[in-house]
Amino acid sequence: MKKHNFYAGPSILPEFTKQKTAEAAVDFAGTGLSVMEVSHRSKEFVAVMDEAVALVKELLKVPEGYSVLFLQGGASLSFLMAPYNLMKSKAAYLVTGSWASKAMKEAKYFGEVVEVASSKDKNFNYIPKAFEVPADADYLHITTNNTIFGTEIKTDLDVPVPMIADMSSDIFSRPIDVAKYDMIYAGAQKNLGPSGATLVIIKDEALDKTGRTIPTMLDFQTHIKNDSMFNTPSTIAVYACLQTLIWLKDKGGVEAMEKINIEKADLLYAELDRNKLFVPTVPAAEDRSRMNVTFVMAEGYEALEKEFNEFATSKGMIGLKGHRSVGGFRASIYNAMPVESVQALIDVMAEFEANH
Amino acid sequence: MKKHNFYAGPSILPEFTKQKTAEAAVDFAGTGLSVMEVSHRSKEFVAVMDEAVALVKELLKVPEGYSVLFLQGGASLSFLMAPYNLMKSKAAYLVTGSWASKAMKEAKYFGEVVEVASSKDKNFNYIPKAFEVPADADYLHITTNNTIFGTEIKTDLDVPVPMIADMSSDIFSRPIDVAKYDMIYAGAQKNLGPSGATLVIIKDEALDKTGRTIPTMLDFQTHIKNDSMFNTPSTIAVYACLQTLIWLKDKGGVEAMEKINIEKADLLYAELDRNKLFVPTVPAAEDRSRMNVTFVMAEGYEALEKEFNEFATSKGMIGLKGHRSVGGFRASIYNAMPVESVQALIDVMAEFEANH
Ligand SMILES: Cc1ncc(COP(=O)(O)O)c(C=O)c1O
Ligand SMILES: Cc1ncc(COP(=O)(O)O)c(C=O)c1O
Ligand SMILES: [Mg+2]
Ligand SMILES: [Mg+2]
Ligand SMILES: [Mg+2]
Ligand SMILES: [Mg+2]
Repeated sequence: MKKHNFYAGPSILPEFTKQKTAEAAVDFAGTGLSVMEVSHRSKEFVAVMDEAVALVKELLKVPEGYSVLFLQGGASLSFLMAPYNLMKSKAAYLVTGSWASKAMKEAKYFGEVVEVASSKDKNFNYIPKAFEVPADADYLHITTNNTIFGTEIKTDLDVPVPMIADMSSDIFSRPIDVAKYDMIYAGAQKNLGPSGATLVIIKDEALDKTGRTIPTMLDFQTHIKNDSMFNTPSTIAVYACLQTLIWLKDKGGVEAMEKINIEKADLLYAELDRNKLFVPTVPAAEDRSRMNVTFVMAEGYEALEKEFNEFATSKGMIGLKGHRSVGGFRASIYNAMPVESVQALIDVMAEFEANH
Repeated sequence: MKKHNFYAGPSILPEFTKQKTAEAAVDFAGTGLSVMEVSHRSKEFVAVMDEAVALVKELLKVPEGYSVLFLQGGASLSFLMAPYNLMKSKAAYLVTGSWASKAMKEAKYFGEVVEVASSKDKNFNYIPKAFEVPADADYLHITTNNTIFGTEIKTDLDVPVPMIADMSSDIFSRPIDVAKYDMIYAGAQKNLGPSGATLVIIKDEALDKTGRTIPTMLDFQTHIKNDSMFNTPSTIAVYACLQTLIWLKDKGGVEAMEKINIEKADLLYAELDRNKLFVPTVPAAEDRSRMNVTFVMAEGYEALEKEFNEFATSKGMIGLKGHRSVGGFRASIYNAMPVESVQALIDVMAEFEANH
């Protein structure tokens, strides 16, 4: 039976990425060696890193003056590295979910942290709109897509200070205006590749302004000066990321991807709205994530949750269980998810409705 | 032509590890999904992590009271995490190479650092023996194998304080007495797996003694409490590490491995001593690494260096060039390197000698 992979992360990857990585696991770039057993300083691997960086710059139209890094540690280590490198004394955070809260926590070691707004009052089921960013904040930190709660900031905000964005779960899903950000970061394991690589895009001139001594590995300058090779990068993870970037360019890049993502999300939310058994957890259409579609059983049908989970599983749907802090269901429909899989889920929902 | 992989890291892996990882890159544990696209919290991946931890404990006879972690960031991030978590105010470092120096540098943020000895005077071509460790030091940090300079501490030292050891390039090459260490760490990319995973073995009761507030991701307790799943681990890297651990156990474990490693190293050093064209860079046999065999052209034959490199390459030898800080050659002969490849290198050296 065909499996439809709705995991929230690590999550569905293009067939191309999987095949190429499987091949390179035994024979990489004609070396006769695995991509896991060649030196990161070999010309073959340096070419992988260079091409991956170049494709990120091309696909996201990264302006001059920004560095693109592939690091380790996940987005969670960037929660710390962001303020360590960029916060002088005051930072602003928009709290739209658990990841945003965790990011904000790490900033507190470095000075005053202003929570400009939070949607915690409604279990993070909306994006706060009317908030003020202190003009003297070093940056505003936002989480563009809230993987757990299914909300998304789908445009580049206009605020009076530079932004830092955790784009872990929606990078490459749409064009972005990189110039508005001092830093963008993302754990690779949604739209880019396997876990183990962290993508960081950073404005060079935003660095070296804190007066702080930064431990070597936490200092972005360390990694910039060494082209992400100060120490050994996660070579197979970067290789797999490169394959996804090649696939993405071939598909028409982030502009084409945005169109398909809108189509997929519209289809699924329309079914959720229509189907009497289900309701989306995010009421406002403009706040609904195109990446993580969260939903629960409608009033009166709560008892069917377990049955639907089993029914969907029996039809090849994987990873639909919602995060424990929200309950219900979450269909993650990242870039690599074909419209057909979204349609298959819709069919399963409609069939389940017909049975009840 | 058969390739013989002498890279220093990332470096040769067992065929078993490569094949299993290639298979799992397209179909993992019968899920029909890639190991790169299943949730780290899926029962299939949790089983991978659990088995990897259990095998590390079994193979190294890790006593009760120690935690085994698979983290990200490489050994280089552990340079920082070690003193952050374990140094109260005074730490001792044995400086046997560049990695040891880099480790020591990070300790300086946290208090007094005593360099108990250094072999820098002879470009790190020996292991200092007569040094004193201050009894009030929180720990002695050692680098058991000096990947760049080809020296190795092949026994567990007797010192009056607990040890922290960077075993990046010789872990699993011999039995160790874990009880002598408060912490052992290793980037996976030599004897364990691909880069992207970092193995940490840590004594639980050594933690929480510094009074220091530690940022979340740098705090070992974070990772202990969450079984290395506080954030997303490098899933494909951990999967590959597990395959090597399974292979290692099948080969008879670290006791069997030590015998083979002694055999391989003895063969190669004997040829270096015998062959008029080459000399090992480490004079004392007891200091010579069994993992990285460093050598240069003998006096009078210096001009042949480039020619030998080309000759060896033409015979399928890969990665023999020495690190730029030592020059000459380095044959890394880690666990996964078969005796036959060492013999092939010896044959090439003998043939080259016969030609000159
Ligand atoms: C929006 C967001 N930020 C951060 C993280 C944490 O990423 P990592 O596990 O790579 O540290 C996640 C993980 O799912 C995420 O979805
Ligand atoms: C002994 C030793 N320590 C530390 C390192 C650094 O490891 P990483 O690149 O994983 O940070 C290396 C890398 O080769 C090494 O050989
Ligand atoms: Mg969230
Ligand atoms: Mg409905
Ligand atoms: Mg060294
Ligand atoms: Mg000789």
